[in-house]
Amino acid sequence: MRIMRKEVTVFDILLLGTGAMVPLPQRYLSSTLFRVDAGLHLIDCGEGTQVAMRRYGWGFKRLQTILLTHFHADHIAGLPGLMHTLAHSGKTDRLTIVGPAGTYQIVSGLFVIVGQLPFEVYIQELQDGDETVLEGGIRCSVVAGEHRGPVLCYRFDLDRAPAFLPEEAERLGVPRNEWSRLQRGESVAVGDNIVQPEQVISGPRPGISFGIATDTRPLDAIANHMSEVNLLITEGTYGDDADQNKAIERGHMTFREAATLARNAHAGALWLTHFGAGMLTPQDFEANATNVFPNTTIGEDGLHGTISYDAGYRPHSPE
Amino acid sequence: MRIMRKEVTVFDILLLGTGAMVPLPQRYLSSTLFRVDAGLHLIDCGEGTQVAMRRYGWGFKRLQTILLTHFHADHIAGLPGLMHTLAHSGKTDRLTIVGPAGTYQIVSGLFVIVGQLPFEVYIQELQDGDETVLEGGIRCSVVAGEHRGPVLCYRFDLDRAPAFLPEEAERLGVPRNEWSRLQRGESVAVGDNIVQPEQVISGPRPGISFGIATDTRPLDAIANHMSEVNLLITEGTYGDDADQNKAIERGHMTFREAATLARNAHAGALWLTHFGAGMLTPQDFEANATNVFPNTTIGEDGLHGTISYDAGYRPHSPE
Repeated sequence: MRIMRKEVTVFDILLLGTGAMVPLPQRYLSSTLFRVDAGLHLIDCGEGTQVAMRRYGWGFKRLQTILLTHFHADHIAGLPGLMHTLAHSGKTDRLTIVGPAGTYQIVSGLFVIVGQLPFEVYIQELQDGDETVLEGGIRCSVVAGEHRGPVLCYRFDLDRAPAFLPEEAERLGVPRNEWSRLQRGESVAVGDNIVQPEQVISGPRPGISFGIATDTRPLDAIANHMSEVNLLITEGTYGDDADQNKAIERGHMTFREAATLARNAHAGALWLTHFGAGMLTPQDFEANATNVFPNTTIGEDGLHGTISYDAGYRPHSPE
Repeated sequence: MRIMRKEVTVFDILLLGTGAMVPLPQRYLSSTLFRVDAGLHLIDCGEGTQVAMRRYGWGFKRLQTILLTHFHADHIAGLPGLMHTLAHSGKTDRLTIVGPAGTYQIVSGLFVIVGQLPFEVYIQELQDGDETVLEGGIRCSVVAGEHRGPVLCYRFDLDRAPAFLPEEAERLGVPRNEWSRLQRGESVAVGDNIVQPEQVISGPRPGISFGIATDTRPLDAIANHMSEVNLLITEGTYGDDADQNKAIERGHMTFREAATLARNAHAGALWLTHFGAGMLTPQDFEANATNVFPNTTIGEDGLHGTISYDAGYRPHSPE
């Protein structure tokens, strides 16, 4: 028998790439990988995403979900190659691909060059306001963004069960062997009294959450949907305020707009990614974001952070 | 008016990547770029090929042809991303995609994620024994390989026109202002004599050529087709002779088999590429090839060589 420690459930989040439009030799296309327990979930899959995944060693076999924000090549052209690699990774359990309306057709087209896979692929199309549950019990809800084509902004929540309060159970004289009944929601007779579960269970406890909004204009609906997430990840295609008109025209955001979105959402922290190919040192424009939303991090390939029930959001050194 | 020197026509050949199956962080997937005058021609386009192209700075706009050997993802999954980049490169003249039967359907599937392109795309399907002419006057002929699906091996020839022999024309007393008529193939009266073009034109001169055979078993038909090419590029998926059975089973070649193919074809030189992902230092197996065919080069990303009418094949330092 192998004895394993159950890890504390956290969102473990990694920026695989931070580039927009074209992959560069030193910057992979925007893609985000996250892990809950051992399960992996990937947001967007541009050309080269599988190479970036290989760099960080989180593995392939446990990939359970791929979430697509939209259908531009720089966000999905890596799917066939990733399938090819997954097919040789030992993966046999199902893969779910989530995306906007049209995902089934688009993925089917791309899969003409993918051979027989040793696992099943389920396609789930979502639209504005939909909510679903990913493997690992992750609540996933979406809101429509505004871009040159349909785009979804994703929010992920891990709810937290109320705590059982042993000291209350003890004070009310409930024998220990009856505690599990209370934990299951049953009431328990203690002498002449009936102890209800509510008496030994804490009130609601906040869960943890993060969201991603990329290839979209900043919308009030997005700020509302991302309300109080521990971490918001958004595109920052343009660092310079002078590129505001380009951002409007092409359906993107400037750093300042992204930071305003994070502030309006009352997010705990902001990561910027999806930097325009012409912007080689996005750090130069950091102040345009931090002046509006101080807890902003300019993303880089390998940026890593966790969100846990106990500690909330914590940045880590880039992987 | 801009005065430009007409470059001597050569095949200028560059290995963009040398990996098989999966792209690795330090090794791009097998793909070969070649240039004749200013026109670019690409053989295979796996995931990441556009990133490799960017490394060497040969540009995108002048890409005229993409030749596909077969339809496995590691040879074609980079097409949509490359189209995306070509669309932003200023290219407006047509692109021709050449491949085995089925290319039209496969490319159409992949192109679902490619937006409107500012150039036309022509698809040309070839089969065993076909010959066509690429832009730049390059003769391109194919022979079928043997793999797990249809595969084409390509040979490229630049023929060389016979030389005009000015000393002969002078000896025969042809006035200089009549030389161009002889060069055009007309006969010229000189006094009582008629000078025929054959009298002032050299005999046939050998052209230059190279060929590529990847994802195939070594076949006699390939050796025949590649007869006396200046350079043969082949896959060398397995370096170790012990992997011979794997090579047979999966439709690939060992180094020794590739070298034997080059010897049988009487090729001038051999480059090996398409190294299995498990073989990190193919140089370790060099002797397995050079014992059979001494003029073998173990490929590496960036390997560069030229073939010119005057000097034949010449290797260069990797780019």
